[in-house]
Amino acid sequence: MPAPKTPTAILLLVCKDTPGIVTRLTSFIAEHGGNLVDVDFHVDADDSGEKLFLGRLEWELPTFTLPRASLPAALETVCTPFAGRWTLHFSDTTQRIAVFVSKQDHCMLDLLRRTSFDDVDAQIVLVVSNHLDLKPLADHAGIAFHHIPITASTKQAQEVAELELLKAERVDVVVMAKYMQILSPTFIEGFPNTINIHHSFLPAFVGGKPYHQAFARGVKIIGATAHFATAELDAGPIIEQECVRISHRDTVQDLIRKGQDVERSVLSRAVRLHLLHRILPYGNKTAVFA
Amino acid sequence: MPAPKTPTAILLLVCKDTPGIVTRLTSFIAEHGGNLVDVDFHVDADDSGEKLFLGRLEWELPTFTLPRASLPAALETVCTPFAGRWTLHFSDTTQRIAVFVSKQDHCMLDLLRRTSFDDVDAQIVLVVSNHLDLKPLADHAGIAFHHIPITASTKQAQEVAELELLKAERVDVVVMAKYMQILSPTFIEGFPNTINIHHSFLPAFVGGKPYHQAFARGVKIIGATAHFATAELDAGPIIEQECVRISHRDTVQDLIRKGQDVERSVLSRAVRLHLLHRILPYGNKTAVFA
Amino acid sequence: MPAPKTPTAILLLVCKDTPGIVTRLTSFIAEHGGNLVDVDFHVDADDSGEKLFLGRLEWELPTFTLPRASLPAALETVCTPFAGRWTLHFSDTTQRIAVFVSKQDHCMLDLLRRTSFDDVDAQIVLVVSNHLDLKPLADHAGIAFHHIPITASTKQAQEVAELELLKAERVDVVVMAKYMQILSPTFIEGFPNTINIHHSFLPAFVGGKPYHQAFARGVKIIGATAHFATAELDAGPIIEQECVRISHRDTVQDLIRKGQDVERSVLSRAVRLHLLHRILPYGNKTAVFA
Amino acid sequence: MPAPKTPTAILLLVCKDTPGIVTRLTSFIAEHGGNLVDVDFHVDADDSGEKLFLGRLEWELPTFTLPRASLPAALETVCTPFAGRWTLHFSDTTQRIAVFVSKQDHCMLDLLRRTSFDDVDAQIVLVVSNHLDLKPLADHAGIAFHHIPITASTKQAQEVAELELLKAERVDVVVMAKYMQILSPTFIEGFPNTINIHHSFLPAFVGGKPYHQAFARGVKIIGATAHFATAELDAGPIIEQECVRISHRDTVQDLIRKGQDVERSVLSRAVRLHLLHRILPYGNKTAVFA
Repeated sequence: MPAPKTPTAILLLVCKDTPGIVTRLTSFIAEHGGNLVDVDFHVDADDSGEKLFLGRLEWELPTFTLPRASLPAALETVCTPFAGRWTLHFSDTTQRIAVFVSKQDHCMLDLLRRTSFDDVDAQIVLVVSNHLDLKPLADHAGIAFHHIPITASTKQAQEVAELELLKAERVDVVVMAKYMQILSPTFIEGFPNTINIHHSFLPAFVGGKPYHQAFARGVKIIGATAHFATAELDAGPIIEQECVRISHRDTVQDLIRKGQDVERSVLSRAVRLHLLHRILPYGNKTAVFA
Repeated sequence: MPAPKTPTAILLLVCKDTPGIVTRLTSFIAEHGGNLVDVDFHVDADDSGEKLFLGRLEWELPTFTLPRASLPAALETVCTPFAGRWTLHFSDTTQRIAVFVSKQDHCMLDLLRRTSFDDVDAQIVLVVSNHLDLKPLADHAGIAFHHIPITASTKQAQEVAELELLKAERVDVVVMAKYMQILSPTFIEGFPNTINIHHSFLPAFVGGKPYHQAFARGVKIIGATAHFATAELDAGPIIEQECVRISHRDTVQDLIRKGQDVERSVLSRAVRLHLLHRILPYGNKTAVFA
Repeated sequence: MPAPKTPTAILLLVCKDTPGIVTRLTSFIAEHGGNLVDVDFHVDADDSGEKLFLGRLEWELPTFTLPRASLPAALETVCTPFAGRWTLHFSDTTQRIAVFVSKQDHCMLDLLRRTSFDDVDAQIVLVVSNHLDLKPLADHAGIAFHHIPITASTKQAQEVAELELLKAERVDVVVMAKYMQILSPTFIEGFPNTINIHHSFLPAFVGGKPYHQAFARGVKIIGATAHFATAELDAGPIIEQECVRISHRDTVQDLIRKGQDVERSVLSRAVRLHLLHRILPYGNKTAVFA
Repeated sequence: MPAPKTPTAILLLVCKDTPGIVTRLTSFIAEHGGNLVDVDFHVDADDSGEKLFLGRLEWELPTFTLPRASLPAALETVCTPFAGRWTLHFSDTTQRIAVFVSKQDHCMLDLLRRTSFDDVDAQIVLVVSNHLDLKPLADHAGIAFHHIPITASTKQAQEVAELELLKAERVDVVVMAKYMQILSPTFIEGFPNTINIHHSFLPAFVGGKPYHQAFARGVKIIGATAHFATAELDAGPIIEQECVRISHRDTVQDLIRKGQDVERSVLSRAVRLHLLHRILPYGNKTAVFA
C-alpha cells in the first residue's frame, strides 16, 4: 500500500448495489485517459437483504484529460443514477491535522514522528489541550499549541472557540490523541471528521477508566480502538483495533503501559489510512480499503 | 510446561497475603523430602488495598515421605493459619470429562483428538447433547452418547437427570463445547466445575448470536472466551481468550468460520490448563499458572 | 470473502505492467454483459525497476453473453498483447483434491472437516500415505486410501505410480498434509499444483526436524508455512504463514503441540484460498487476493 | 510484573539440575527473614539428557537480616555446591545505559520515553553514534552525545575509545538501537552486556538489509529480534521477538515502516526485562522470567 508519487484522483462511493456500477466508473475513467492504479469495492449485505455498494477507485492524473476543476461536475453526472454519497480527493493535497491532547504524550509523539518522516502528504498544524503538560513537546516540534482548558461551565464556549480555530486554520481532520474529554454533539456536528482513540477493545469497556474496568473483569486480552467520534460516546464507526495479551500478573499500571503501546500504533495506523482516503464510513461501520 | 512423568502433588492456594506463606509451604515440602518442580505465586492488589495471595506448588511424590492419605490433614494444619481456600491434586489421577454439545462438531473433534494423543491424564467418558447430530462422532470414538433434549417445560427435570448422570459416572469436569443452552443456576450449583466457550471477546457481545452482534457493530477483531460457567450468563471467571482480525469484507458466515477456529483452540487450551491444575479462580477472575 | 453462490468466471493474470490493462479487461467483461463482483490487482516493483502486473477479476456468468466454451479464445485475443500468463476458472467446477499424509492426523482431520462443511466447491477424492496409520480415518470418511510405501530404492517407481493415480482420478491439487517425504523434482514437474505445509517459519529452519532446530536456537516464536512445492526443498512460493509465541519453558514436545495447531490452520487457509483461485504465483512469490 | 517499590534482592542462578536447589535457596532466604516476592525456575533438558536448572528468586530487603555487604559471601557458600553461575542484583540500584544509534530515531525515541516515565530504575547516560543526525534529539533530552565515526581503518581505535567511555561513565548496559555497525569480537569481549535489535525474525535473514531479503523471498510475516550481541553476527541469545503480517501489496518501504513499529516495541521490552533482571542467558538461549 505505497502512496503513489504520481498524483492521483481518488473516488469513494457508497450507494445501493446495482449491477454495472464498477463498469460505469472504470469506463468513465478510461474514456478520459485515466490509468487505474487501485480498484477496490465490496458489497455489504445485512440480514435485511439490503445490499450496499462500497467502492474506492484511484487513477493517475497526468494522463487524465479532464481538468481537475471539471471533475466534480462530471462525476456528479456519472454518480447521480446511483443515488448514493461520493467524495473526491487528490493525493497531492496536503491535509491539515489538529491534534487534541491532554497529559499523555505517547500518541502525540508517534503522530509527530510519522507525519515528519512518512509517506503521507499531511502536516500537524496545531495542538489543542486542556492542560499545559505537552506544550514543550509542541514547541520543540515548532507546532502552535493552544491551551484551551475545559470546565463544566466553560465547555460550551470553549468548544465554540475550538471550532472557530479549526475553521480559521483550515483543519481537515481532528485527531483526539488521548484527549480524555468528551466532545459534545454540537462539536461533532460542527466538525464530523474527528478520529478518537479509545483505550479498550470496543464495545467492551466504554466510558471512563477502561483499563480499571478490564482489570476488575479479569480479561486475558486488552486492546485499543480507533473510531470516528460521534454524538454517542465510544459508539462511532470503528476504523482499526488491536489487542495485546495480559495475565493475572499484570497490575492496572501494567495494563496502562502495555495498552499505550497499542493505542499509539492503532491511532497512527487509523490516521494514516484516513489521510490516504482509504476509510469509507457507512452507517455505524467503516470499509477499510487497504 | 511439560506434564511431568514423575507423579507429583499439586497445591493450589488462595488467601489473604501475609509475609512468609511461600517460606512456610516450601519448608513443609522440604521437611518431608519433596522435590519442588514448580513454584508459582502472585499477589493481587485491587484498588481497595486488599492483597490476595494466589499460589501453586508442585512437587515430586516418589521422594516425599508423607503418605498420600496423610497429606490432606497435614496441609490443613499448615494452611489453616492462612485462613484461605486450598485444593490438593495428584498428577497421576485420571480425570473424567463430560462434553456437552449441540450440533457443531469443531470443538468436540478437537477435544477428542487431544485427549487421545496428548500429555494430559484425562478421558472423555460421556457426551451429552440436546440433538442427535453428533452421535455418530461419539459412536466412532467409542464414547457414550446421551441424548437429553431440552425444552422450556422439561429443562428443570432434564438438568436433574444430567446431574445424576455426572454423579453416577464420577465426572470431574463438564466442558460445554458449543452446548448453546444456558445452564440454570441450580445446575451450576450442583456441578460448579464447568467450563464454557463463548464465541465473543467477553465482555463484548454477551448472550445470543455474538457473531451477528459483532457484524452489526462493525468491529475489526473478533474473539472467543473460555470461562467457568456461573449463575450469571457469560459473566464467569475468564480462563483464556484469543482473537482474530476481520474486515468489512467478511460476512457473518465468514465470522462464524474464522471464529470457530479460535473457539476450538481457546477451549482446548483452557481445558488442558484446568486438567493440569494450573487454573485458580478467585472472585470473578482466574490466575493461570502457565 | 464469501464464495459467491451465483456462478462466476475468474481470471488470473500476470504480465509486464503497462497502462490500460485494467481498463481493457473491465471493458471486455462489460461489453459482454458481465457484472464484476471482484477486481483486485497490484503492481509489483523490485529493485531492478521491472514492474509486474498481477491481477484477479471475477464476474457473474448468468448475465455474461459469451458462452463458456468461447471464453478462452476471446480472452486469448484480449490478453495476447500483454504477453503474460493467464488462467481462467469457473466457480462452480468441483475441484478434486488428493491428500498426502504420513502418520500425523491433525492436518488431514482439519481438511476433511472443512471440505465437508465449508463454502468451497471441492472434495477430497483420495488419500496417499507411506504408512497405514491414517487408513481408519480415511475409511470412516469414505475416502479411498492408497498405501504407497516409499524406500530409497522404490521411490522413483512409487512416484510414477502416484502420478498415474493422480491422472486417473483427475486430481486438481495435491495437499501434502504432513507427508514428511521429499517429492522429487520429477514428481513436482509432473504435478506442479502441490501445496506443502512446512512446520517452521520459513526461511528459518528448512529441512528436517524444524521444531528441534527451533528449540536448539532458542527462538521465542515458532511458525508454520504453507507453500507450493518446488524442486528445491522448502523454497517454493509462500502462500500463508502464521506464528505462535513460545518460551524457555516449552520443551520440544510443547513446540510440536503448539506448532500443530498452527500447521493445520495455515494449511487449511492456504488450500481454501487456492480453491477460490485467490493465489497467483509469480517468480518465487505469491499474490494472495483476499 | 510490577517493579516492586520495596527494595528487593534478586538472585539469578544457572547450574546442573539436582534435587533440592529451590529448597536450599528458599530456606536460606527464610532463615534470614527475607520475604519472597517472586520465585521462578525451570529445568531445561535437551536431547543429550543433560538437565540445567535455571532460576530467579526475589525477596524483600527491609526484613532481611543479612547486611547487603555480607550477602555475596553468604550466597557463595550456599551456591558453591551447585557448581553453577549466579549473579546478585538490588532493585534500587540505578542502572546506567548507553544507547548506540546511527540515523534512525524510532528506537531511541522509544527508549527515551520509557526510561523517563516508566517503572524501571535506570537512566540513559550517553548516546554514541557514527553520525550526527540524532544529536538534536539527545540534546533536547539533555543526554551527552558522542559522535564517534567509524571507517574500516579507524574501527579498531574507535572501539577502544568507546570501551574507555563506557568504563569512565560506569555504563551497565549498551543498547544498540539500530546502530547498523557490527561490533568486533574484541568489543563484545570487553563489554558483553550488549543488547541488539535485528530487524528480522532470526534466524531468518541474518546480515544486511533483512527487509530487502524478506521482500525478495516473499514471506507473509516479518519480525524483529532483540538479542545479546556476541562475536558471531546475529547469532547471540534471543531475548524477545515479535512479528507483523505483510502481503504482496507491501513494498520494501512498507516493510521498513511496519517493521520499525515492531523493532522499537521488541527492543524496549527486552531492555526493560533486562533492567528488571528477568533475563538469564545460558548457552545460546535465554530464560525470560516474566
